[in-house]
Parts: sequence; C-alpha cells; structure tokens
Amino acid sequence: MFEEMAKKSAGWLKEVGEESSVVLSTRIRLARNIAGFNFPNSADKETREKLLEYFDSAVGKSEFLGQGNFYRTEEIDRTNSSFLVERHLISPTMLDNLDGSGVFIAPSEKVSIMVNEEDHLRIQAITTGLEMDRTMELAAQFDNEVGRLLEYDYDSDFGFLTACPTNVGTGLRASVLIHLPGLVLTREIEKIIRKVTKMGLAVRGFYGEGTDVMGNLFQVSNQTTLGQSESDILEAIERVTRIIINDEAAARSRLEEEAFDQICDKIWRAYGILKHARVLSSEEVMNLLSAVRLGLAINVIKTLSIETINDILLLSQPAHLMKYYGEDMDADRRDIVRAEMVREKLA
Amino acid sequence: MFEEMAKKSAGWLKEVGEESSVVLSTRIRLARNIAGFNFPNSADKETREKLLEYFDSAVGKSEFLGQGNFYRTEEIDRTNSSFLVERHLISPTMLDNLDGSGVFIAPSEKVSIMVNEEDHLRIQAITTGLEMDRTMELAAQFDNEVGRLLEYDYDSDFGFLTACPTNVGTGLRASVLIHLPGLVLTREIEKIIRKVTKMGLAVRGFYGEGTDVMGNLFQVSNQTTLGQSESDILEAIERVTRIIINDEAAARSRLEEEAFDQICDKIWRAYGILKHARVLSSEEVMNLLSAVRLGLAINVIKTLSIETINDILLLSQPAHLMKYYGEDMDADRRDIVRAEMVREKLA
Repeated sequence: MFEEMAKKSAGWLKEVGEESSVVLSTRIRLARNIAGFNFPNSADKETREKLLEYFDSAVGKSEFLGQGNFYRTEEIDRTNSSFLVERHLISPTMLDNLDGSGVFIAPSEKVSIMVNEEDHLRIQAITTGLEMDRTMELAAQFDNEVGRLLEYDYDSDFGFLTACPTNVGTGLRASVLIHLPGLVLTREIEKIIRKVTKMGLAVRGFYGEGTDVMGNLFQVSNQTTLGQSESDILEAIERVTRIIINDEAAARSRLEEEAFDQICDKIWRAYGILKHARVLSSEEVMNLLSAVRLGLAINVIKTLSIETINDILLLSQPAHLMKYYGEDMDADRRDIVRAEMVREKLA
Repeated sequence: MFEEMAKKSAGWLKEVGEESSVVLSTRIRLARNIAGFNFPNSADKETREKLLEYFDSAVGKSEFLGQGNFYRTEEIDRTNSSFLVERHLISPTMLDNLDGSGVFIAPSEKVSIMVNEEDHLRIQAITTGLEMDRTMELAAQFDNEVGRLLEYDYDSDFGFLTACPTNVGTGLRASVLIHLPGLVLTREIEKIIRKVTKMGLAVRGFYGEGTDVMGNLFQVSNQTTLGQSESDILEAIERVTRIIINDEAAARSRLEEEAFDQICDKIWRAYGILKHARVLSSEEVMNLLSAVRLGLAINVIKTLSIETINDILLLSQPAHLMKYYGEDMDADRRDIVRAEMVREKLA
C-alpha cells in the first residue's frame, strides 16, 4: 500500500514556490459537513459507515474526483497511517481514532479529503511556498465538486456548520509553514510570537513547543473563522507572514554582518555531520537540516537544492523511512538506516 | 627564523613506527651537567653565559654536532619559542625562563639539546612509534660526542649528578606518548593509571589532566633513575607500554563488538566536522583527531594517512599555525585559519 507514493517526494514538496527561502508550504483546510448526518463524534458506527459510503459513491460519480483514490482507514495499517500523517495527508487526530473514517487522496497529492475526522469532510490543499490564492483555488475546486454531489450543512446566517464552533462560518483554516532560524538565533522569536498573537493569529512550533521547537519550523494560522470572509482570512495570514518574512530576513542579515564566521561554521558543521554520521535521530536531522536550509538561503552552500533538503526532511520520518526501505525497523535500526539514507541523498 | 622548519612536519612525526596504532612517539632525555659550573638555578648570569659559550665552542669543534644549529634563546622571540615548545624541541619550563639559555637542534629534528634549563644539558631524542632502543641509540650518539668534548659531572657511586635528585644516576627519563581512546571510552583509564603507578611509573594526560585530558593522549614515563640501570628503565617502560597497548586493543575490540555503530558514528562525525567546520579551536581539533585516529586504527576510515593526522595535530597549535601562514593572529583569527588549514589538509 502506498508503495509508489513512498518512492517519490510529497506533491507539496516537489516544487519551489514563492518566498521559498523562508516559507515551506501553504495549507488550506475547509471543514464541511453533510446535511442529515450527526457530526462524527456523536454519530453511531452505522451512521459513520453510511457517510463513508455516501462520500465514496459521490467520488464514483465524478470524473474529476474519480482520478483520486479513496481509502477506508480500516484497510490502512499503523505504519501506513503514520506514513499519511507524516505526509500531511491525514491529521494526527485521525491517527488516534481511525475507526469508521477514510481519506481521499488526489493524484497530485496536493489535495486530500478526510472523512469522519472531527467533521464529516475536511478538504485540505497544500502547495509549496507562500501561495494563498493558488492553494485556495485548489481547495475550492474540490470543494465545489464535492458540494455539487453532496448536500453541505449550510446556514444562511452562520455559514458552514461545523463540529467545533471555532470553525463555523467559512470552515476555513489557513496555515503557513515557515523556517525561522534567524529569529531563533537572535532570540527574537518570542517577541514575534507575541506580536502575531496580538494580531489574532497563532504562531506555533511545528514540531514541538517552546524551547523544544525542532528544525526552527513554525506554523502561522488563523484561530477563528466566524464573521470573517475567506479573503479576510487569507489576506490577514499573507500580510502577517510577509511581516515575519521581513523580520526573519533582517535577523539573517544581522547575523551575516555580526557573526558571519560563526553562522558559516554552524551551517557547514551541520552539513558535515549529515554527510558523515552513521546514527541519526529524526529530531537531529530536522535540526541539522535547519542549518543547511539557512546555508542555502544565504548562499553559503551552493551545491545543494532545496528539493533535496525537503526530500530528506520527509524521508527521515519513521514511517517514511520504513516504507522507503520496505522494511519494519525498531528505533535503533531506523537511526542507522536514516543516516544511510541521508548520506545517499547528499552524495 | 625556523621558516623552513615550519613548512615541514616534525622529524619525529614524519615516519610510521612500531605499534603506531597506539604509540605516537618515544622520547629519551638525558640530564647532563658540566664539571666546574654551578647548576643553572644557582649560577649567576656570567656563569650561565660561560657555559653557553663552552657548549657552543664544543659544537664548533665537532664535525658531527656541527651539522646542527645552536640558538641562544635571546635571539628567539615569543612566537618562535612557543613554536619550539609545540614541536617538543624545548620544554615549557624553558619557555618561562629563556634568559641565558640555548638550544641545539640536530638536522633531523629528532635530537635537541637544551642548555641551561634545569640542568646544564638536556639531551633529548624523539622518534615515531614505540622505539626504545633506536631512540636510546640516537640519544647516546649525541651524549657520547658531547661527553668526548666536555667533562660531565660524574660520580662513580651515584652516576651522573643532576640539579634535581630524582634525576641522579643515569639522568635518564624515557617517555612514550600513547593514544588511549578505547580505555577512555570504556572508562577503564583510571584503573590502568592506578595499575601503572603501582609499577613505579607515571601515566599522565599529555594535554590537560583528569577529565580534561585532550585528544585521549597520555604519557608513560619513569619517575626516578637512581639505583636503576639504563636498560632497567627502558625495559620497564617498554614492558608497561606493551601491557597498556594490549589493554587498549582489548577495549577497542570490545567497543567494536558491543557498540560498532556508535563508534563509527563518533569517528565519522569527527571527520565530517573537521572536513567542514569554519571555526576550530586547537582543543577541539585535538579531540576530533583522536576519533579520526581511532577510525584509522580500527580500519573504519581507509582513505587517510596517520601522517596527515599527525601533521594536522602539529600545525593546529597556535605558534605553528602562525608560522605556517607567516602571520601574527589573535585567537579568534587563528580558529578560522586553523579550520581552513584542516580543510586543506583533508581535501
């Protein structure tokens, strides 16, 4: 299962997008529910099953959706479902509660639809770089097609009805994954987080929280949607992201001016360790890749592509590693095989 | 001064000797004093000067000694005298008290004679690897020639008279510089040190003491000489060194069996950092080279020679680095230039 997928990079990591020296990806998620069905949390097994079949038959009726694949989560074993989480195709929440749910994956892998997660449907689109409009268009394309075939729970006052009140309205959550080594190294990150929070958006470590944020990767997202239009939300996130990009660029310039040798040293040591280590945890790879990614961005490393870095980031994750080598492995074995994979990719 | 010398490796590091996977070098030092002169510590300036001239004229009379060079320490500036210490041609003690002393250096650099250090003469021979006999022969060759020309202070009961009573008798101190990463990693080093001390010999960190020993380099030497013959001393050190070599080999085998991946990881990371870092202190280079040296010894690294490692070890030292690049540098600048030199040597 997913063997072909495991051999290639994720759709949203394959290209180079706008502002890619700071922004890894833009993600848009639309929460949708189907009229006449209880929300998944309060639905019995039978209702959940009926909803799955209802969605499946809609996919069958659509030439457009028919190009993708729909999987019942019962068919997916633990490694494969972790694989989908690592690939950002399903949510970690879904991993904890796989019963009676499913996932539709578009051929490009840029769009997936989770069925019976917190809402009946969560349509998600991801693209590389800072691409709010393009990502929204992509999500809307699938939203329109599904909405044509199934009747959404929609209230003319409130908008789309959702299981959690924070999603009512547009059902839209947009997020941007950004790499902020400059702000972390200059210790300005906390100040930025406070500033962005005041603007009503959230900034969080993408892997880990507080001082344990790994790989200096952060996510900017909206908190609520009610009373805001889609374009309000997208514009707010884009505006704030551009502010953060400028702050990050200023921090990087300052580091280059004031501590160039030390930054180069950090970057090249990270590269040297990745290129030579025999045992590597996924956390360490994430942190080392952060330095190497910075090296590319400030033109200190010139012989490596961002695609290679993204590829390693993706493949370093436990389930990806096991799928890539077609082998079940414990954590110790994975650390050794991960180091092999990294050396191979950097060779 | 010493410009030609700075361009090449030290004589005692150029070759590969016996047991070179553990033993870096063997050093023999003979303390000799000249009849009719006070010991340097209690000699006035005039006496010290007279002794220097006396030695210098002896060198002038000998075709054999005449091939070397004799330097008054007044002629040698701070960088150059540090350079000689780093090269093991003069002692750190001499560096602190340069007035009215001198050093004779043989063309091979394997033999030097310090004049007016603690004793009137300290004849020192160093060779690569574990080579007690060969090193003793080399020292004796110079000792005999100097003894032919100058009258040594010798007592038929006590033997050679020396400034410090621990040297009376043969005046011989022999030492072996050994690399013990296996015993350090398996935490057996303290046990070995106690064992060797019980046998009447000393084992000490060569750079630093206790847990601060850098580069896992230790020195085994005799403590006293009175009442022992030259061959007793040399045999004792060789015997104990061979015991330590066996212990070290056993520790390395155990590490290879029980933690091969971790050891390889440590070795290759060290190599990767050396090959890529942009800022390196001499202490860090010493510690990283220790791992790489182990890598060569256990055949994990195959594309590097021990000569290159020794070369880097020597050139990493502050005065060597400044002489090599012909430039005065502060510590920060040295750390950057040192990293350049290491990358160049490993390229």
